[in-house]
Amino acid sequence: MDYSKMCPKYESAAELLGKKWTGLIIRVLLGGPKRFKDIKEQIPEMSDKMLTDRMKELEASGILTRTVYPEMPVRIEYELTEKGRHLDEVIHSIQNWGENWM
Amino acid sequence: MDYSKMCPKYESAAELLGKKWTGLIIRVLLGGPKRFKDIKEQIPEMSDKMLTDRMKELEASGILTRTVYPEMPVRIEYELTEKGRHLDEVIHSIQNWGENWM
Repeated sequence: MDYSKMCPKYESAAELLGKKWTGLIIRVLLGGPKRFKDIKEQIPEMSDKMLTDRMKELEASGILTRTVYPEMPVRIEYELTEKGRHLDEVIHSIQNWGENWM
Repeated sequence: MDYSKMCPKYESAAELLGKKWTGLIIRVLLGGPKRFKDIKEQIPEMSDKMLTDRMKELEASGILTRTVYPEMPVRIEYELTEKGRHLDEVIHSIQNWGENWM
């Protein structure tokens, strides 16, 4: 097998998943679209700033979308894209290994 | 589900896998025990120092063992532990997602 070809895409994916809180945020969003405060409620130990930063990174990576509903007050929802939803299996796989071996 | 329980073990596992070269080294070792120079040959872009550092980390994490054979010259082999071999599925899962979506 050509290992040099494995490298860049694997490394990008693993780096993204290895960032603190990212797996947890994706896991919460696998349950469906959520507002900022709903995500926050499920991961109370994470600061607002950290959640904001991670959400921006995940939006930039095409893992989630941010939709603004022009209501009063404005409603903003975060939702996984197809790319993000396909991380389900990957995250479960890391989680299973972690539970058995870490 | 209790997300706080998911956190530490998932994060440790994902952080380990997210380090540059780690996935690649494990993938090479999934092919069987190897000597330092054999791993190096398969990942020529990685420096000796980087490979040495990663191998030490992976040994400390219980992912691989380092065996010294008292021959002349001394032979040193690196081999995945059971914990390390079980990363096979995880790495394939990250790799597949990366290939499809990155």
